[in-house]
Amino acid sequence: MFAASSKLNTLRIGVTMPTVNAYAAPGAAEPLVKTTIERRELGPHDVLIEIKYAGICHSDIHTVRGDWGPQQYPLTPGHEIAGVVTEVGNEVTKHTVGDRVGVGCMVNSCGHCVNCEKGNEQYCLEGNVGTYGAVDRDGTITQGGYSTHVVVTEDFVLRIPDGLDLDVATPLLCAGITTYSPLNRWGAGPGKKVAVVGLGGLGHMGVKIAHAMGAEVTVLSQSLKKKEDGLRLGADHYYATSDPETFEKLAGTFDVILNTVSAPIDLNAYLGLLAAGGAMVSVGAPPESLAVNAFSLIGGGKTLAGSMIGGIRETQEMLDFCAEHGFGADIELIPAEQINEAYERVLASDVRYRFVIDAATF
Amino acid sequence: MFAASSKLNTLRIGVTMPTVNAYAAPGAAEPLVKTTIERRELGPHDVLIEIKYAGICHSDIHTVRGDWGPQQYPLTPGHEIAGVVTEVGNEVTKHTVGDRVGVGCMVNSCGHCVNCEKGNEQYCLEGNVGTYGAVDRDGTITQGGYSTHVVVTEDFVLRIPDGLDLDVATPLLCAGITTYSPLNRWGAGPGKKVAVVGLGGLGHMGVKIAHAMGAEVTVLSQSLKKKEDGLRLGADHYYATSDPETFEKLAGTFDVILNTVSAPIDLNAYLGLLAAGGAMVSVGAPPESLAVNAFSLIGGGKTLAGSMIGGIRETQEMLDFCAEHGFGADIELIPAEQINEAYERVLASDVRYRFVIDAATF
Repeated sequence: MFAASSKLNTLRIGVTMPTVNAYAAPGAAEPLVKTTIERRELGPHDVLIEIKYAGICHSDIHTVRGDWGPQQYPLTPGHEIAGVVTEVGNEVTKHTVGDRVGVGCMVNSCGHCVNCEKGNEQYCLEGNVGTYGAVDRDGTITQGGYSTHVVVTEDFVLRIPDGLDLDVATPLLCAGITTYSPLNRWGAGPGKKVAVVGLGGLGHMGVKIAHAMGAEVTVLSQSLKKKEDGLRLGADHYYATSDPETFEKLAGTFDVILNTVSAPIDLNAYLGLLAAGGAMVSVGAPPESLAVNAFSLIGGGKTLAGSMIGGIRETQEMLDFCAEHGFGADIELIPAEQINEAYERVLASDVRYRFVIDAATF
Repeated sequence: MFAASSKLNTLRIGVTMPTVNAYAAPGAAEPLVKTTIERRELGPHDVLIEIKYAGICHSDIHTVRGDWGPQQYPLTPGHEIAGVVTEVGNEVTKHTVGDRVGVGCMVNSCGHCVNCEKGNEQYCLEGNVGTYGAVDRDGTITQGGYSTHVVVTEDFVLRIPDGLDLDVATPLLCAGITTYSPLNRWGAGPGKKVAVVGLGGLGHMGVKIAHAMGAEVTVLSQSLKKKEDGLRLGADHYYATSDPETFEKLAGTFDVILNTVSAPIDLNAYLGLLAAGGAMVSVGAPPESLAVNAFSLIGGGKTLAGSMIGGIRETQEMLDFCAEHGFGADIELIPAEQINEAYERVLASDVRYRFVIDAATF
């Protein structure tokens, strides 16, 4: 079934389980190594994608290292995937061979629960099927995008618009939708003041998207180290949260605060930065509970919310939005052999602003 | 200036500071006593109201007892006021003598800040002027509704629609708007499942209003003691929160949870009761911070919000809504001499569901 691929570099074990090159973690404490993984035979609704690029998300590191719970190893991470369709199942209607496509954090969901029906597959009541490390509907454990090929049911494959280069589009599949969805839901737009807390992989997309939506954007970062970058990415203002004056000066300012950091923060202090009726939305989360005083919310009719990626329909909308506004992510392209080094740099916040792996090197 | 009142029972000290009967707390630790207080001379935009009824709100007790900060004594509480207009200033256009009117938690605001301009006077950036215990624009300390008359600037005087009896309309001015505003903002209505936590003065209004809005209403109360009442007030279901099975059975159920209790609760447990995209709104608040785990919000795109009373325009909308649907509060009418006893019963949750004082007995 992989014969349609011009760059096919697979091994085959039998005829039903195609084997492809990949990088995987052999265990929680071990670096990723070059290996092969099996992909399922193309089903009637499946799309075979030749992966061109795979992004490195901070959560890849947490997951393969077992920070968020035990995993089955070896595990191939990667949920920011961009590539080209090389074969489609005989009932596929949404994609054809040659299409430029992407896959994000999910590869399936039940399709019939109230959340799936609303287009919120990420909140599927039966649990969405994560792109890696999840139990797939056939009982196997899903393997992610650090690989040359992937087979995905057509409903979870996104079109990457012509205006977007595949490499810079790759991080949109997680970092893009994770920031677009809450900015969209909470009304970022003309006349609105939006703060983005943290200028990492998520934060830099938050700035670009909020700016493109027409909002007045402020970056709240620990230091002013990345100030020049922040302004270049579209921020109008840039403040250091290590400076207590920031919290006095900006009190009551923002309509939306997008919190992209997963370190614990003083929620009540940040809620004080919201204008009346404003919303602070967290997309990053520390494992520990944080203290919130109800008066921080009641005085000003404020909101503390959470958001997890976005649905498939909204992800397509986000890709179209980014293409229309002519931007992808700011990336650093690396070969597969630098993955482990890149992981250390992500943990040290030393990336501007997303590592993307060239899939030709898997 | 009080000559227009048929039930005038005032004393006068000089001509500019009319004195009227009232009940006041002489100090934080003392019971309320019968006394007299001064009202300001009618200004061009002022309305003189002969008070017919004054509601007892739980926050009256907290305030006069100094639980929420030090007060100036003697202090006359009361921010649920219904009565009849007996005189108007010469530039008043919104009300005329004989009008049935009400006053809620605010008697003034700056009128020109962004929140006032949006009709959210409760979040006035200069601070709204509370109906009692607040510094008025003339520098005096405001005195509340446990009194025979009150002078209020016309913009903060509400029309009580004909269909509503004044006594049962009285608690709407605080308990009604405090529950209506968040239910309205967070979309209670047909097809929506709303939980009301706590069946006290606020909770019983929350049930009536959510039911009238067309939502499917569930009461979450500590015990099943008031179940019959809850169902009579309009609830479709009634569960005890002391039963751990409640939290399993109702997991992921509600679009809106209105939290009316001011005791500390397990926020993460209640957030677990929300459906994806749902909002839990607190209108009651314990002084201590509560622990919230960001994952409780992120998984399901959930919201934890606060809400404080409502603006003047929305308060009028709420009064009209209640009149249209033919309901006020469930009240227990008492003479002024029973105020202190009523306070103890409110603290013991022994009131169904709001004490209203007959102002003829002040």
